[in-house]
Amino acid sequence: MSATSERTVAIRGVGTTTFGRQPGETDRSLAERAVQLALADADLDPAAIDAAWIGNVTGGQLGGQMSALGQLALRPFGVGGLPVTRLENGCASGSVAVRSAYLAVATGQADVALAFGAEHMTAAPTPLAIEVLAGASDLEAEARFGITFPGVFGMIARRHMEVHGTTPEQLAAVTVKNRANGARNPIAQFDQAVTVDDVLGARRIASPLGLLDCCAISDGAAAVIVVAEHLARPGDPRIAASAQTSSDFEPFGEMTGFALTRRAAEEAYAQAGISADDVDLAEVHDCFTIAEILHTEDLGFCEKGAGGPFVEEGQTARDGLVAVNPSGGLGARGHPVGATGCAQVAEAVLQLRGDAGERQVDGARVALTHTLGAFVHGAAANCALHVLVAA
Amino acid sequence: MSATSERTVAIRGVGTTTFGRQPGETDRSLAERAVQLALADADLDPAAIDAAWIGNVTGGQLGGQMSALGQLALRPFGVGGLPVTRLENGCASGSVAVRSAYLAVATGQADVALAFGAEHMTAAPTPLAIEVLAGASDLEAEARFGITFPGVFGMIARRHMEVHGTTPEQLAAVTVKNRANGARNPIAQFDQAVTVDDVLGARRIASPLGLLDCCAISDGAAAVIVVAEHLARPGDPRIAASAQTSSDFEPFGEMTGFALTRRAAEEAYAQAGISADDVDLAEVHDCFTIAEILHTEDLGFCEKGAGGPFVEEGQTARDGLVAVNPSGGLGARGHPVGATGCAQVAEAVLQLRGDAGERQVDGARVALTHTLGAFVHGAAANCALHVLVAA
Repeated sequence: MSATSERTVAIRGVGTTTFGRQPGETDRSLAERAVQLALADADLDPAAIDAAWIGNVTGGQLGGQMSALGQLALRPFGVGGLPVTRLENGCASGSVAVRSAYLAVATGQADVALAFGAEHMTAAPTPLAIEVLAGASDLEAEARFGITFPGVFGMIARRHMEVHGTTPEQLAAVTVKNRANGARNPIAQFDQAVTVDDVLGARRIASPLGLLDCCAISDGAAAVIVVAEHLARPGDPRIAASAQTSSDFEPFGEMTGFALTRRAAEEAYAQAGISADDVDLAEVHDCFTIAEILHTEDLGFCEKGAGGPFVEEGQTARDGLVAVNPSGGLGARGHPVGATGCAQVAEAVLQLRGDAGERQVDGARVALTHTLGAFVHGAAANCALHVLVAA
Repeated sequence: MSATSERTVAIRGVGTTTFGRQPGETDRSLAERAVQLALADADLDPAAIDAAWIGNVTGGQLGGQMSALGQLALRPFGVGGLPVTRLENGCASGSVAVRSAYLAVATGQADVALAFGAEHMTAAPTPLAIEVLAGASDLEAEARFGITFPGVFGMIARRHMEVHGTTPEQLAAVTVKNRANGARNPIAQFDQAVTVDDVLGARRIASPLGLLDCCAISDGAAAVIVVAEHLARPGDPRIAASAQTSSDFEPFGEMTGFALTRRAAEEAYAQAGISADDVDLAEVHDCFTIAEILHTEDLGFCEKGAGGPFVEEGQTARDGLVAVNPSGGLGARGHPVGATGCAQVAEAVLQLRGDAGERQVDGARVALTHTLGAFVHGAAANCALHVLVAA
């Protein structure tokens, strides 16, 4: 059942901290900083916020604040009393926060709703961080038997190569593009361009995926201030669609695409009254290079199986048919998991306002954000998708 | 800003597992069992569920399933594809799940929404479980300096005694009443009656609070199926109000009451068009005996400061002025944290349907549920409150 949007919903302000290793910060300090940036961008009295949702995944396990994280991060702004909810939907937590804020405003529960997400992951030893992230798979059937995310996506990549003829060079082209975009994004974790040879020559993680095919552990936060139409300023982008789907459990039946992404896209395109061809830019969940290739297919930007040539030919570059991950994506901007969904929406807003600086996608009018979270039985467990349109 | 309820919302089915130590179970297995019970109670095709929210707090930290917990627990029923969101608002997680389901149905996003909560806590060593729960305080300002929940509520009890003359015997009366109620509840963790002397003679935890003033670590799950009016059966209770508030950060300014409870109650009574006098029974957050006394005052059942005599005189007994915690409450029914809010609503539904067996409150027409979650700077961080009315 899709949301019954009764009011037009806009985004009045966004804020994203620097992404990447930030010693001395915490989930909470990063969340505070993102809220500060978003409030400044929105030029809004903090007291106007009616409700808030925060996405955060590893908090408790990696030593960060749980339960009252949102309340504590809002306190320095004198904001209290309002409903504040912490969400944990794996790597889709931030976008489910955006969706919750959107629905609250669309249905008249709130005039101003805050969605934010924060994650400080680098203080923990990497093996612990990886173990915690593996908790987003089926603990009983997968994680305990070593079927971790790099392993699953390695199998998916192998299968895509077998069925569709995708090449290692095409996988590498995803990283080359995203690192080039990241180099133009001041908040990106990785700001150095790389070559196809760099990617192919990197240490193998889960063949055919190497180190530069995988997103990294990161620290960062992002915030999005969602408002009812009467509080939007003339240039503020609108949220034209919001969809959330989950796995329908067809165990390893497909492996070269995600049905839940296709269902979410179908629902969102219908809500927004657009087709895939109308999308100018998309921030998608490139946790691994093969994932971005799958998503460009599942979102309808190219035919199933054609994602490899599509990226290799430059169709997903900033000046291509559809700019995919102009921010650098998870691979270059970074992936502090709870923050990612909010950061994707923040990038879409900057692009639609024409405020994206050196990485601006010319003439951007329609943007899509796509986040996956958790992964069970051969498919993602959560998908949250938004369509934003320029004012 | 309060919710704009546009549709009448009912509860068609509820299910609660046994609460208490259950070796061999997990968050997931308990959640499955609660859903099974609620679906049977609702006599509803599982495929009718449009969206689901699950409350769970300690999952990741105590070894349970994170991220995809809800999806995996729904899988045995063939339910997939729908939006499923995991919430973590400390001990209020389950009631925020109920509120989310309520709002989805009230605003037309869903016709059938599932709220459930699950927590398996007893497999962990008690010190670890306590450390994890302490993560629901302000980690930086409180937990790391030993200001844990028993300590805070011990201070609150001491203050209430000083200011209002509350006695240890009155605190004990809360436990005596709740254990007596629990003895009539087949799912309760503690089913043995105790005396005032038992409570006063128990080992001290944080003076004046002893072991029998504190709720225990527990395992359990509960589920609530929320439906639009056209799917309600003739006897199904209605949700007349839903409110969620958070701390307004007046550090330790009061300590004998919680402003966020009073604000939530005021909002909920207005939504439901009732006053405190109309409430026949209330399931409240008695994490410690002193907490129940505070809540009876803050909810308006008696004057501020009069909560001690109020319970001692039997006004909160099953046949008193207002039956408080007829299920046995957190102290006797048990407090598997993520499940508690759903279990409170489940009890309210059974009472309003006249299905509460030996613990039935005669003539129950209006029920209130009140849950707190997390505790920072001298006050709870989250409060979620519902008013239910008989059909």
